[in-house]
Amino acid sequence: MSVLDPSIVQKLKQAAGPSGWSEDPAEIAPHLREWRGRWKGESQLLLRPRETGDVARILSVCDETGTAVVPQGGNTGLVGGQIPTSGEVLLSLERMNRIRSVSLEDNTLIAEAGVVLASAQKAAGEAGRLFPLSLAAEGSCTIGGNVSTNAGGVNVLRYGMTRDLVLGLEVVLANGRVLDLMRGLRKDNTGYDLKQLFIGAEGTLGIVTAAMLKLFPKPAGYTTVLVAIPGVEVAVELLNRLQDFSFRLMTAYEIMERRALDLVFKHIPGTADPFPEHPGWTLLIEISNPSAFDATEALEQALARALEEGRIVHALFAKTARDREALWRLRETIPEAQRLDGASIANDISVPLSRIAEFIRSGEQAVRAVLPEARVFTFGHVGDGNLHFAVQAPGHDAALLAAREAIERAVQEETAKLRGSISAEHGLGLAKNDAIARYRSADEITLMRALKQTLDPKNILNPGKLLPSGRG
Amino acid sequence: MSVLDPSIVQKLKQAAGPSGWSEDPAEIAPHLREWRGRWKGESQLLLRPRETGDVARILSVCDETGTAVVPQGGNTGLVGGQIPTSGEVLLSLERMNRIRSVSLEDNTLIAEAGVVLASAQKAAGEAGRLFPLSLAAEGSCTIGGNVSTNAGGVNVLRYGMTRDLVLGLEVVLANGRVLDLMRGLRKDNTGYDLKQLFIGAEGTLGIVTAAMLKLFPKPAGYTTVLVAIPGVEVAVELLNRLQDFSFRLMTAYEIMERRALDLVFKHIPGTADPFPEHPGWTLLIEISNPSAFDATEALEQALARALEEGRIVHALFAKTARDREALWRLRETIPEAQRLDGASIANDISVPLSRIAEFIRSGEQAVRAVLPEARVFTFGHVGDGNLHFAVQAPGHDAALLAAREAIERAVQEETAKLRGSISAEHGLGLAKNDAIARYRSADEITLMRALKQTLDPKNILNPGKLLPSGRG
Repeated sequence: MSVLDPSIVQKLKQAAGPSGWSEDPAEIAPHLREWRGRWKGESQLLLRPRETGDVARILSVCDETGTAVVPQGGNTGLVGGQIPTSGEVLLSLERMNRIRSVSLEDNTLIAEAGVVLASAQKAAGEAGRLFPLSLAAEGSCTIGGNVSTNAGGVNVLRYGMTRDLVLGLEVVLANGRVLDLMRGLRKDNTGYDLKQLFIGAEGTLGIVTAAMLKLFPKPAGYTTVLVAIPGVEVAVELLNRLQDFSFRLMTAYEIMERRALDLVFKHIPGTADPFPEHPGWTLLIEISNPSAFDATEALEQALARALEEGRIVHALFAKTARDREALWRLRETIPEAQRLDGASIANDISVPLSRIAEFIRSGEQAVRAVLPEARVFTFGHVGDGNLHFAVQAPGHDAALLAAREAIERAVQEETAKLRGSISAEHGLGLAKNDAIARYRSADEITLMRALKQTLDPKNILNPGKLLPSGRG
Repeated sequence: MSVLDPSIVQKLKQAAGPSGWSEDPAEIAPHLREWRGRWKGESQLLLRPRETGDVARILSVCDETGTAVVPQGGNTGLVGGQIPTSGEVLLSLERMNRIRSVSLEDNTLIAEAGVVLASAQKAAGEAGRLFPLSLAAEGSCTIGGNVSTNAGGVNVLRYGMTRDLVLGLEVVLANGRVLDLMRGLRKDNTGYDLKQLFIGAEGTLGIVTAAMLKLFPKPAGYTTVLVAIPGVEVAVELLNRLQDFSFRLMTAYEIMERRALDLVFKHIPGTADPFPEHPGWTLLIEISNPSAFDATEALEQALARALEEGRIVHALFAKTARDREALWRLRETIPEAQRLDGASIANDISVPLSRIAEFIRSGEQAVRAVLPEARVFTFGHVGDGNLHFAVQAPGHDAALLAAREAIERAVQEETAKLRGSISAEHGLGLAKNDAIARYRSADEITLMRALKQTLDPKNILNPGKLLPSGRG
């Protein structure tokens, strides 16, 4: 670890204010540990600004002294983007956790970067509105991290990614200047839309300090149904049919392979197969109803027709809120069941909807070519083409983990062949920043590097993340 | 007009292919005339590529020789962005007019830059889907222009701006390299989302040659109603109430001031006031119904309650398709009626929804301070905060036109005070590229210039447009 010049440390402490820093290794330690232990960071200085002005002063010092800084939100990232691996200064936004305003007329909420996602959801809810971003880490991930990783989650089908939910941003640039992009207008064609640059940039182009977010009406109720289908091909066809019918009021269209559910029934107490016989694939479909109507009856009719036609095998509607919770539990506990069952390798990929069935076949073949004992199961947000493609090898955990790199590579190659994405939701960070050089064109990488050079000429913002390490 | 070096002309002709160019002034002339006559261009060479490869070759020559080029689609722009004012080479994309594919499974359509918007709508419709972008110029504007100006239109409330409808782009860079950003995935977090750079950039960062667009289910029907309200304040309150109720199935929420409708009744044959007495403001509200339900009854009940409470004055539902057409005619013929009534100055602005009423008051005051004879009337997409704020001075047309600049400036100042946008839909081009220096911060302008410098170091792509001319 490179040791910081004491005079730089002094300047940074001053910039962060009296209670805005720590050099105590015990205080710093939790920020350095990626929660699954896949990356271990090092940093001698933790900065905890309270205000945008603090961040601006800190970045001015970093710019002046060429000091690298790693921004961190809730430290829940899955690709290592939040970990300082080369002794960079750690800039935690956790104390910038105010909700600056909620406007019911404008349907907006302004949250600082350190606001925990669940707190933003809660503030929206208390105002009678919905902030629809929802994902597993919502109890600890932060708005700044959500914006910087363009977070996805379970409601993307209806509400889009974080990019679609951001109306304005406040960003501190590498040179310490504060960019106020908070106009928050639904229509504003006055030159380049600069905020787009920082969404999903993983803190490599600027530090997001606050975001103006879109609010939506709260659903009046839900129509939730578990549907068993004979094969994955039916999933996309049924999706389009139901979209047509419900007009994108559908908020979830999740797929679960038989083996994923079997793991749940095996490991998660209180779960059981709700169907008398269990075909290969199950869908969890949810429509969020406006107050004007309830889709349940219409969906019942549509699925009754699909049943008659032999397209679906069973359909089980949630009759109560508790039913709904039980159905969602089947989907939400898959990752936990997977962990309890032994080693596994997760792959966060997406492919065009038309290629999903093809990918599931060819992806499994590719994995087995690496490790014949491997078994694959798929679950995920099929409505977005986003599959969590999980690889296990029961009884061969050591062999599986030894083959991790080759398996990930094989899945990435199959994904790329079908013009898919090797990182649908989680980003690149340290985990896939080199891989991306294989799957985006040289011209794209060149342009990405040029943007990085333009916005961060001294390479002080989260260096070594997102861009391939090969050069520059 | 600077005359091009004959050897450069020769190279450009060769790059464009045998039938891909014209030096005939008569052929070039229509491309140089802005349709309202506000700008007059000059160019000695018109290039009409058929393929992306042609554009790449053309840009390579431009790059090599430092030759400036102005891309043009349907020549319908309202801010002069499409006009070569300094003898630049004119690059018309009109012959790149193929629809490359329509995918029902992926709900996507790939259109080349020169596809007329109405043709894209038609292709989607014939495939049983909806491409929702819709605006007055749809019969002649093109997809490339729509993308490059981030076009808005009448369906933004429900479907967003063009930015929200683009899943992928093909772009030729200033150096002639083709950037294939056509993955078209709903979820793809693999580095910077480069396509965002080119959307709304008015051809100053690259030439869009094709776009992958999102398709949607076709509405099963419409609930359309004309509502008279006592004051503009009611409009935003009612909008939120109806959004809550219909859950963003609303596709139009248009406002018309009394004076706007009076002009229609006066100038447009076959129109008449549908209400016995006509209050100050009228809303045209439309919900696009999915096949699962029809919102009419629920909307009738909601408006009946609003009527009882005295929030609205009248409500007239369209009972037939012809009724619907007649109601829309009232809204759509306002610009024509305005033209027929004499000189007027249009202002394409947006403000936060919460500031609309305030803006209408203070904007009119500001205009009258410039020209006491001026009268203002407002119409537009109130659901997006986007108002067309029209200024007339009956009997004083000459004075009005003489005061154009001062009036536009006054409206812009009021807009900026309320954190609004001085160009909601139309872009900057030549009309507002200098004004923007007053309303976006120096840091924003600096960053915009840096992006321009990075992507177009020789300043050959639509030079002098969008960015303030002050420097560089």
